Amino acid sequence: MSVTPSAQYSLTIRVEIDNTPGMLGRVASAIGEAGGVIGAVDLIEVEDEQLVRDITVDAADQSHWDDIVAMINGLDGARVIDTTDRTFLIHMGGKIEQHNRVPVKTRDDLSMAYTPGVARVCQAIADDPAKAFQYTIKRNTVAVVSDGTAVLGMGDIGPRAAMPVMEGKAMLFKEFAGVDGFPICLDTKDPDEIVETVVRLAPTFGGINLEDISAPRCFEIEDRLKDLLDIPVFHDDQHGTAVVVLAAVLNAVKITGKELKDLRVLCIGLGAAGVAVTKILLEAGVSHVIGCDSKGALSTEREDYLDGSMNSVKRWYAEVSNPEKLTGKPADVIDGMDLFIGLSGARVMPPEALSRMNKDAMVFAMANPNPEVAPEEAAQYARIVATGRSDYPNQINNVLAFPGIFRGALDTRAPQITEEMKLVAARAIADVVAEHELREDYIIPSVFNRDVAPRVADAVADEARRSGAAQGGNTIGFAAVDAERLHAGT
Amino acid sequence: MSVTPSAQYSLTIRVEIDNTPGMLGRVASAIGEAGGVIGAVDLIEVEDEQLVRDITVDAADQSHWDDIVAMINGLDGARVIDTTDRTFLIHMGGKIEQHNRVPVKTRDDLSMAYTPGVARVCQAIADDPAKAFQYTIKRNTVAVVSDGTAVLGMGDIGPRAAMPVMEGKAMLFKEFAGVDGFPICLDTKDPDEIVETVVRLAPTFGGINLEDISAPRCFEIEDRLKDLLDIPVFHDDQHGTAVVVLAAVLNAVKITGKELKDLRVLCIGLGAAGVAVTKILLEAGVSHVIGCDSKGALSTEREDYLDGSMNSVKRWYAEVSNPEKLTGKPADVIDGMDLFIGLSGARVMPPEALSRMNKDAMVFAMANPNPEVAPEEAAQYARIVATGRSDYPNQINNVLAFPGIFRGALDTRAPQITEEMKLVAARAIADVVAEHELREDYIIPSVFNRDVAPRVADAVADEARRSGAAQGGNTIGFAAVDAERLHAGT
Repeated sequence: MSVTPSAQYSLTIRVEIDNTPGMLGRVASAIGEAGGVIGAVDLIEVEDEQLVRDITVDAADQSHWDDIVAMINGLDGARVIDTTDRTFLIHMGGKIEQHNRVPVKTRDDLSMAYTPGVARVCQAIADDPAKAFQYTIKRNTVAVVSDGTAVLGMGDIGPRAAMPVMEGKAMLFKEFAGVDGFPICLDTKDPDEIVETVVRLAPTFGGINLEDISAPRCFEIEDRLKDLLDIPVFHDDQHGTAVVVLAAVLNAVKITGKELKDLRVLCIGLGAAGVAVTKILLEAGVSHVIGCDSKGALSTEREDYLDGSMNSVKRWYAEVSNPEKLTGKPADVIDGMDLFIGLSGARVMPPEALSRMNKDAMVFAMANPNPEVAPEEAAQYARIVATGRSDYPNQINNVLAFPGIFRGALDTRAPQITEEMKLVAARAIADVVAEHELREDYIIPSVFNRDVAPRVADAVADEARRSGAAQGGNTIGFAAVDAERLHAGT
Repeated sequence: MSVTPSAQYSLTIRVEIDNTPGMLGRVASAIGEAGGVIGAVDLIEVEDEQLVRDITVDAADQSHWDDIVAMINGLDGARVIDTTDRTFLIHMGGKIEQHNRVPVKTRDDLSMAYTPGVARVCQAIADDPAKAFQYTIKRNTVAVVSDGTAVLGMGDIGPRAAMPVMEGKAMLFKEFAGVDGFPICLDTKDPDEIVETVVRLAPTFGGINLEDISAPRCFEIEDRLKDLLDIPVFHDDQHGTAVVVLAAVLNAVKITGKELKDLRVLCIGLGAAGVAVTKILLEAGVSHVIGCDSKGALSTEREDYLDGSMNSVKRWYAEVSNPEKLTGKPADVIDGMDLFIGLSGARVMPPEALSRMNKDAMVFAMANPNPEVAPEEAAQYARIVATGRSDYPNQINNVLAFPGIFRGALDTRAPQITEEMKLVAARAIADVVAEHELREDYIIPSVFNRDVAPRVADAVADEARRSGAAQGGNTIGFAAVDAERLHAGT
């Protein structure tokens, strides 16, 4: 897998170019020779002797920028006068902002939105707390909560440095499902403190999305919050991933003609995602799983199980998996597997080992940015290959799940995201790819497929109503919130 | 003070009216006879025999609505088919929402705003935490924190019912100073828990605005948070009120020709606002104050001071005030006062008692909605009268202070709102009314005077730079945030 230029290393280069015919062409050729991919070219300033242009160039990494700039500066008649890292530019000042839904331009506005009129609204909620879902942002607002201990591939970078990710998550909530996400990064790593803090914050919010909290703390934190709160709590690293993986598996077995109950699954990486993926596969009907952590295959005969040093989540895992008590590294236990699920780290699986999987093998190598096995190599042995990357087919991306799941839960005021809701969400995602569209390299819809979130939301809301979890009719759905006009007061 | 129709009791009445000439006039007359004030009249539906119209009517209170509807229904040829409480309508679904400042419409957008590009931004903040002010919403976001224990005139209505007020506050932050306010209503009343919760939340925010937390808990909570945090903490009920009262006093003494150092001040109501107003007056040069709580005039000879049952804030108050150790109710100690400050409750002061104040008396009766003494009655004895109400001249309203104060603090990344910053903010507000404009009924600018917040922000920022508190140059100011284009990365 060679490193190719991408937007994440996009640089805007301001170049002063002599105003002579052919000069722009020479600059463009120099950038191309250096391996940069040119996007927009804007004219900034025209003088008699010189032109100033902004040239946007995708590069392979940061060091590549220096090469490109040097190539330009090496030309007679062209000088780089400034460069802008476009990724940092996008994050300047934060990526989200607050917006007023109603005007406060006049005394009348003020007397209705704020004092004295607001007092009647407050009193109505004091008399009937359920009205908080009607007259406050609680109806549509989800806290994106992190302690910054397991942020993307970077690990424990702390709450301040986690903010750009949580803001990004809030953006995705809004973009894909109209949900108002708000990032809350907590200055504590203590599970008790995280739980009590989130409980105290809950009056503001209609749901809690836990994010990038390290395992095994994340399991306990989520379980306790679900017990304590009457609004949905959802750890996306676990359940978002699980739902999307299940969706992909449901479509993959349609192609390979395998049945879930017969599937032999090897799961590498038993953090938040690996455990949750295994759980949802078992719920969906899979019965044979082997899990591997950094010490190898998990079983009830492994030393740390026997001596009691294994954490409770892995103990559970050992008990429901690996009936043959196999031991060894992932490559030692891959024989006869149908589905490989990688949620661990770069290149942990030698590609050749995949040859020992069953016919029509399915390989989901989801470590980011570098998968457990390069997709090009996996393709030599597997019929279906999926990754977490946007530049390969079959991208497993949580954004297919969480916006629609919360939309459906908020619209029905469901107090929890139940296991059934996750299963119907996975089926809804899978069903966006019609039977006749299914192919080895198209088992999961694109993250920008706008059908996904509404269909997931509908499925979750239907399930909430079916199970009796639905409490409300304050439906926002995908219609513009501002368009609604509810007649109250009578 | 008779109750007059106002927007806070604004009702949209949908009326089906016979399609005959003169009918609308008869409906309008009926509404007028019932005492309603008609605003907009919209045509909704036209049929052969009937028209459906929406008529917006301001009423005096909720019971007045019934009278108006009954008057319309009493007409031949008109039927009320629906009514909408416009205040509740404004609050439907909450008054604020999240908004994405940059697009996430394409894969390139996603790879810069979210994974994988976001990782570089996170890493930059992990390496230098001060960059959180550059690349996250921390730069411009203020938490509006309440426990719902002292909400407007309603007292302890709890965190859920407090939300509409905190959302309203967030709206005012945005509208008047471009600050992103976000409401955080806490499900605890314990001062220790409030303090530790806010400390844990702080990574997300650039400032903390405490709101509607009951005294004396609010004093301790604010003091402890100021010690623990490196971002501004500001209890608006105290300091916002204090700043605006001082601004009004500064202009009032210009008219009456009195000097602050000679002013004799009686302050009724020693909650958060009364204490803070007294403090800022003392800092500004006032030296003679008497404070009254519900037990009467405070002094070091009062029983609860002597037996130690008085709380520490009131002990401080008793020690710095009432040198003559006067005793009794407000009306017993008003003789020879220059300035009456009411921050207590409706009609606690008999108007006749004001006759015993000094010549050119100033009466600030700020209890809401019903002042300590009716302004019409106070005007018989006082030269200058101010209230907290928008329907009388000289409205003392915190919105003149807090948006600009936080704007100035955020723009300079000042770690605290200092006493000096509050004083310069008060002077800036006062100075918006030019000397030649000053009149007995115009000592303080209107809440909708758009000069106020920028001038307060400039004064606070200047003071931050003067004192060395300023830490940053991430100025947003009042220019559109989106317009900025900082060149980073080189």
